[in-house]
Amino acid sequence: MDKKEFALKQHEDWHGKIEVVSRAKVTNREELSVAYTPGVAEPCLEISKDVDLSYKYTRRSNLVAVITDGTAVLGLGDIGPEAGMPVMEGKCALFKVFADVDAFPLCVRSKDVDEIVNTVKMIAGSFGGVNLEDISAPRCIEIERRLREECDIPVFHDDQHGTAVVVLASVLNALKVVGKDITEIKAVVNGAGSAGMAITRLLVSRGLKNVIMCDKYGSLYRGNPEMNSEQAKLAELTNPDNLDVKLDEAIVDADLFIGVSAPGILTEEMVAKMAKDPIVFAMANPVPEIMPDVAKKAGVRVIGTGRSDFPNQINNVLAFPGIFRGALDVRASDINDEMKMAAAQAIADIIKDDELNDEYIIPDAFDKRVAENVAKAVAKAARESGVARI
Amino acid sequence: MDKKEFALKQHEDWHGKIEVVSRAKVTNREELSVAYTPGVAEPCLEISKDVDLSYKYTRRSNLVAVITDGTAVLGLGDIGPEAGMPVMEGKCALFKVFADVDAFPLCVRSKDVDEIVNTVKMIAGSFGGVNLEDISAPRCIEIERRLREECDIPVFHDDQHGTAVVVLASVLNALKVVGKDITEIKAVVNGAGSAGMAITRLLVSRGLKNVIMCDKYGSLYRGNPEMNSEQAKLAELTNPDNLDVKLDEAIVDADLFIGVSAPGILTEEMVAKMAKDPIVFAMANPVPEIMPDVAKKAGVRVIGTGRSDFPNQINNVLAFPGIFRGALDVRASDINDEMKMAAAQAIADIIKDDELNDEYIIPDAFDKRVAENVAKAVAKAARESGVARI
Repeated sequence: MDKKEFALKQHEDWHGKIEVVSRAKVTNREELSVAYTPGVAEPCLEISKDVDLSYKYTRRSNLVAVITDGTAVLGLGDIGPEAGMPVMEGKCALFKVFADVDAFPLCVRSKDVDEIVNTVKMIAGSFGGVNLEDISAPRCIEIERRLREECDIPVFHDDQHGTAVVVLASVLNALKVVGKDITEIKAVVNGAGSAGMAITRLLVSRGLKNVIMCDKYGSLYRGNPEMNSEQAKLAELTNPDNLDVKLDEAIVDADLFIGVSAPGILTEEMVAKMAKDPIVFAMANPVPEIMPDVAKKAGVRVIGTGRSDFPNQINNVLAFPGIFRGALDVRASDINDEMKMAAAQAIADIIKDDELNDEYIIPDAFDKRVAENVAKAVAKAARESGVARI
Repeated sequence: MDKKEFALKQHEDWHGKIEVVSRAKVTNREELSVAYTPGVAEPCLEISKDVDLSYKYTRRSNLVAVITDGTAVLGLGDIGPEAGMPVMEGKCALFKVFADVDAFPLCVRSKDVDEIVNTVKMIAGSFGGVNLEDISAPRCIEIERRLREECDIPVFHDDQHGTAVVVLASVLNALKVVGKDITEIKAVVNGAGSAGMAITRLLVSRGLKNVIMCDKYGSLYRGNPEMNSEQAKLAELTNPDNLDVKLDEAIVDADLFIGVSAPGILTEEMVAKMAKDPIVFAMANPVPEIMPDVAKKAGVRVIGTGRSDFPNQINNVLAFPGIFRGALDVRASDINDEMKMAAAQAIADIIKDDELNDEYIIPDAFDKRVAENVAKAVAKAARESGVARI
């Protein structure tokens, strides 16, 4: 049985990767009368007087909705809401296993921004947070922005911000390895989709000054007629000299390349034009923008990919469980930049200076310290930035 | 600590009566690569080719949404969506404990019929069935009707039909005790709300011919200007002589009184006017239409109430877990009258003829045979009525 067949068989045997169980023991009339009528009337009445008590008397305080419309599932594209659910269930399983967060998967049968936003708003009182997943760009950006504005619980699109957090963590440690400062380097982000834009924004928030974003048509620059409206906003934050260039020119003297684009985009010739000790995060999946062995041979000092079979795996599971754990713990109203930066720093700080090296800049996905440290850092940042509610 | 304080403390300690856990073991990279990327792509692709495979590869086949808008919670009324959630969580706990059905509670932040219907339709692909709960009349009737028409999964409003099923079961056994036939008796149903109407419809489906429904204004009869549009439909099915009477006249020679109305409505004088061996189900909560001791003294032969501290408790937990278990087991597209009647018969049949007596016409809520027998009967009825999909 090959790996694909095994995965299919395993999913059939699991019959769902999540399960809803009872925390209340109900084995006799006495217990029934507490968990259900008439006892249950008491918490109902308390919550009706103060809706915040829903966090005390129901599961809401530990519960995250994992929501998709099935339009951008893994690399498979628009496969439909129900077909996205194995990924959503997997995500929920990881939330529980890595951070004891209860997560419940919901697929929405619409691609319309208004309908998706309304659906999530309607059921938001059932949850403590919302994780958006595998929704295609640029709709995902608008959906997240509107939900963050209109919902009273934190809303986080993991494909954007989870990725951004882990990339920032990796960048911070890689820069330590090569002895450079984020405020002084030149970076190129290739692939101006939702993940690329979120990565760039977070790096800029953390101090990166010189970054050029590229898409298929070349660099994002102010006035570029090829850009969509989201990219136009990024052009305001990036490309300080407002250059109209292609990747092979943008890459000249770059200290850092971040690819969220397509296989093989970064050539050896391009690497050769980069600054000394170049850092490359090549996250196209499953085939990266440049293969690690090729990159190393071409002079790359630190390379990370999205794959588990190479060192330095950029894996979102390092971020989202701890981020939501921290946000739920302080009942945060939002997951803001301060919290994302704190999460990135916490991930980076897992590796001590004397352990850091070219092939170990990012902790292992199963390093138990990660989610705990991320949660603490995120909760602290939520308090300091004024979004904690307890 | 009194009972109310204890219930509140217990709910605080539970910190939610449901929990979402992982069925997939994810403790190392190998397991992660099956439950999540890249392995998870396989079931996604299969479902994208045939959406019915979502029942094979995700939890959907065992998953019911328990949905409220918080407008008619217990006897507490319109206390708001979040305040209804302790009841919904309790319901979900009972689904799991009594029939191993995974149920997940969702409150909808709207009282608008269209918005509630749309919200449920949008997320229906995540579930195998929908249990509506504690939604006020007459909206609940329209919401259920529309969802049954517009959703591809079974939708069941337990406050209507769960109650109706357990009442029918009780009626069948009570009639056995007194040796009467449902097609020949006269019945009065007092309280023409959504539960009273559902009870009456199901009894009529099962063969009851002579039934008068009463509300505050008196009997439902064709042409009564006091009736709402739902009650007008019931007037077509009931009151064969089209009498314009009050309860105290309707009750004359009745063999059966069913109350879903208010405390103390049924007086000793009324009972005295009933036929020989009268049967009374007085389900106003917590104080019934007539107290059992008063009823017995006035000549009632069999009395049931909604209370666990008297014999013959009409308790929905006898019905809904097994009904959904059976519906899910055959992937029913609907929960129809045939399935409801089969559920009622299965509940009634638990008690053998030589066990039946005035004070034991309905099985105990914790009788383990109930959910199992109900599930089997419901699955069979679904097959026979053509709504089973496997």
